[in-house]
Amino acid sequence: MKRLTLAVDAMGGDFGPCVTVPASLQALASHSHLVLLLVGDPDILSPFLAKADSSLVGRVQVIPAESVIASDARPSIAIRQSRGSSMRIALELVQEGRAEACISAGNTGALMGLAKLLLKPLDGITRPALMSVLPHQHRGKTVVLDLGANVNASSEMLVEFSVMGAVLAEEVLEISQPRVALLNIGQEETKGLETIREAAAILRATPQINYIGYLEGNDLLTGKTDVLVCDGFTGNVTLKTMEGVVRVFLSLLKSGDETKRSWWLRLLGRWIQKRLSRRFGHLNPDQYNGACLLGLRGTVIKSHGSANQQAFAVAIRQAEQAVRRQVPQRIAARLNTVLARSDKA
Amino acid sequence: MKRLTLAVDAMGGDFGPCVTVPASLQALASHSHLVLLLVGDPDILSPFLAKADSSLVGRVQVIPAESVIASDARPSIAIRQSRGSSMRIALELVQEGRAEACISAGNTGALMGLAKLLLKPLDGITRPALMSVLPHQHRGKTVVLDLGANVNASSEMLVEFSVMGAVLAEEVLEISQPRVALLNIGQEETKGLETIREAAAILRATPQINYIGYLEGNDLLTGKTDVLVCDGFTGNVTLKTMEGVVRVFLSLLKSGDETKRSWWLRLLGRWIQKRLSRRFGHLNPDQYNGACLLGLRGTVIKSHGSANQQAFAVAIRQAEQAVRRQVPQRIAARLNTVLARSDKA
Repeated sequence: MKRLTLAVDAMGGDFGPCVTVPASLQALASHSHLVLLLVGDPDILSPFLAKADSSLVGRVQVIPAESVIASDARPSIAIRQSRGSSMRIALELVQEGRAEACISAGNTGALMGLAKLLLKPLDGITRPALMSVLPHQHRGKTVVLDLGANVNASSEMLVEFSVMGAVLAEEVLEISQPRVALLNIGQEETKGLETIREAAAILRATPQINYIGYLEGNDLLTGKTDVLVCDGFTGNVTLKTMEGVVRVFLSLLKSGDETKRSWWLRLLGRWIQKRLSRRFGHLNPDQYNGACLLGLRGTVIKSHGSANQQAFAVAIRQAEQAVRRQVPQRIAARLNTVLARSDKA
Repeated sequence: MKRLTLAVDAMGGDFGPCVTVPASLQALASHSHLVLLLVGDPDILSPFLAKADSSLVGRVQVIPAESVIASDARPSIAIRQSRGSSMRIALELVQEGRAEACISAGNTGALMGLAKLLLKPLDGITRPALMSVLPHQHRGKTVVLDLGANVNASSEMLVEFSVMGAVLAEEVLEISQPRVALLNIGQEETKGLETIREAAAILRATPQINYIGYLEGNDLLTGKTDVLVCDGFTGNVTLKTMEGVVRVFLSLLKSGDETKRSWWLRLLGRWIQKRLSRRFGHLNPDQYNGACLLGLRGTVIKSHGSANQQAFAVAIRQAEQAVRRQVPQRIAARLNTVLARSDKA
């Protein structure tokens, strides 16, 4: 397999290098062809690397950065003051072709703005969107976007998101003629926001998209669609609601007053937990961390700010897969076809 | 206990009388002081009542209605053509003082519009909001609104929702100085939609409200706030996402290929399911069906359109409790105080 170089914003996220460096080493250990450029303060990063296996450290290069964009910074100000920051340098490495993708757990708004500035949107894309591939109850996958790159979405943007989501489902998940649905507050045509109704009308008139109508929040995990499209505010709230509920369930499964039980009940309890964890494991948010910023001329993966080591390592794997699958190139190629045909129609 | 008369739109919802009549009989059986006015087509309702216990049927009165508002009707048209419909007649019974509250599983938009038309909003309320009391992981409760009465919300509306939610938490859930949070896509002040940021500024300057800031979707069940406020589109999607995930979990708990197991494993499996169902039972959406339309001069409960008998019976109980707790009167009284003080400030 060909060597693959990724840039990691090692300072971003709630825990910074405490999570990003061990996660990077974990990713290097599982992928022998991977090279990681860790962008950050060398004085802070070095101690984390000092103790690591030399075979792994040999595939790490520390790229110095003077500053970090704060998670709570206003994106517009953060972008203006971004020169020399770990996030910007990581993106510049992609821009310059030194890395094939970039991963950051930092400020979403700043990442989105900087990525757009440095990597430029594809032709036909107004605004990039954050996309995740979520598991559903029948162990299939659903492409969901936008998860928070834009707080508002016009009907045109929703249509662009639909095209990008469909391309991703077809090219990466290998679903032929993927079903596309809009997230709304009712299944009837008259329901919801005007932008959604307008987008529905356009999608119905676009034969290249297998548009199946509206779905509601309760269908997020049911697998009724392959692609679920919404504005970034709704998508973010929905995804976080889902994750919150899943975490509550997983924690309730583990809870229970063990001290009061006899030894055999405790043993039994642990056995049950193990079986249940396996049954629900694919729904655990740590297993699908990493949203892909779609619609750019490069690959950018946004990790949860609060990701732990396991979850950040999953985000690195997402970046690697997006590069191998040539997601930006495939979207660009398909956008050309769909947009050209729509123009003629 | 004093007799209490409620009006039931017996024709509304996905299953109509098949659910509403058995649920009504169930509610009558558990509350000996309850009288129900079932509004609908007598020819359709009678067969369901014919077989019921005479002691229950004695507390039922069928109020004839000629038509039903379709669930997928456009609310504006449905309202114009609503005369003689079961939903409208049920609301008119409240308006005329013949019933103290009304329950419907019908078209949300039509119910909202007709309720506003017939029962009128309280002074100081721009638009009523749909509110539910959701369970949280520590077995406490969270008041959440708006759940879909309005697809958009201005900052003023969000502030009104906050006041109503706080009153409800204080007067009905008996939480002193209830914490109020706005649902947003980040906890930092700069995050999210402008209307939300404006509402936050007003709430921070309102000493009568114990405003604690923004919360995200993953905090829906954590009990970090007593009142969670959002616009109706977001609230509806969030609630349905939560319900969807809970249902997926409950169904996964029950699933598993039983045929392959030995008898003792099957027995054990059933025992475990029972224990788990008890642990998660309070999160089952059927247990808290029924959203209250707050901000009106009367009590209106909206049941899920797809409610089953158990869930619709819960909605009837919600109506009964709202009447006993004098929710509209208490909100009106408290609104006067808060609004008067805010005006002076």
